[in-house]
Amino acid sequence: MSHLAARPDLIARVRRIAGQVAAVEKALAADAPCATVLHRVAAVRGAVNGLLAEVIAEHLKDHVALPGLSDAERATGAEDLLAVIRRYAK
Amino acid sequence: MSHLAARPDLIARVRRIAGQVAAVEKALAADAPCATVLHRVAAVRGAVNGLLAEVIAEHLKDHVALPGLSDAERATGAEDLLAVIRRYAK
Amino acid sequence: MSHLAARPDLIARVRRIAGQVAAVEKALAADAPCATVLHRVAAVRGAVNGLLAEVIAEHLKDHVALPGLSDAERATGAEDLLAVIRRYAK
Amino acid sequence: MSHLAARPDLIARVRRIAGQVAAVEKALAADAPCATVLHRVAAVRGAVNGLLAEVIAEHLKDHVALPGLSDAERATGAEDLLAVIRRYAK
Repeated sequence: MSHLAARPDLIARVRRIAGQVAAVEKALAADAPCATVLHRVAAVRGAVNGLLAEVIAEHLKDHVALPGLSDAERATGAEDLLAVIRRYAK
Repeated sequence: MSHLAARPDLIARVRRIAGQVAAVEKALAADAPCATVLHRVAAVRGAVNGLLAEVIAEHLKDHVALPGLSDAERATGAEDLLAVIRRYAK
Repeated sequence: MSHLAARPDLIARVRRIAGQVAAVEKALAADAPCATVLHRVAAVRGAVNGLLAEVIAEHLKDHVALPGLSDAERATGAEDLLAVIRRYAK
Repeated sequence: MSHLAARPDLIARVRRIAGQVAAVEKALAADAPCATVLHRVAAVRGAVNGLLAEVIAEHLKDHVALPGLSDAERATGAEDLLAVIRRYAK
């Protein structure tokens, strides 16, 4: 999927999330106030949701909507996406 | 969009949700226990998420992946979907 | 739970949601564009999430945090809330 | 908040999430199939939601419901929780 590897912004997003997760661990280990931990975890959640939306967008464009794909390729791309959306929509 | 009108199961889902919403109103009006109201609202939420996933699936199949659409039609269908997913992913 | 019956704004919220659900059904029955249906369902979802947050807030204040409750009442109130949050957090 | 520091399972959860985030970065860097990335990000989302529910549960028990807290402490604990839930409920 060279199209994702060609998106340095996605890697940057994932690295920011890794930093946020490390900050949660640090807060737990340092016995930070519970409210601090709560807000940090909620921030991770927002960032992960944003990343998921970007990856879904990328997948939709490159594996379903892209001009020149075969009907079978589009069908597979749509199925992969729906599996995630159904899981995501719970 | 004859494709949605041709899905009586979607109308049935919406009607069930309408019934669940009416049950929430009834519980509030009847001074039902707060825990009852909580569970009913949470059930509505689950049902609405399920409906949204179905409508997204339908849109994806018929406005992005469908064989025979023009490139422009697919691009528009993908944009409409992404607008909802980005809003949904917050 | 007189405390919820005493919140006419909650009933008003539920009625607005009922109206939004009716608009989804109408759109489906009238063969409205799929994008219209999508946006209407997404709007219902947002409204239901907002209602759930309000009901959770009310429950938290009146069944867990309220001065004068017994320890057992607070424990029950917290359990009821956690059951919904765990379901909600999937 | 010695109560969170006393929960090694929470730290273990956070470390697992850190591992899952690292796996997403690795998949992006290695040009893994888009569907693989999608599923990994969706898995992170589920794990973060589960962690948030646990931290909310812990906060609710120890800063709102706990026997012996002052009314003011409970009120503050409830406010901190509601700020997160309202943000979370969007």
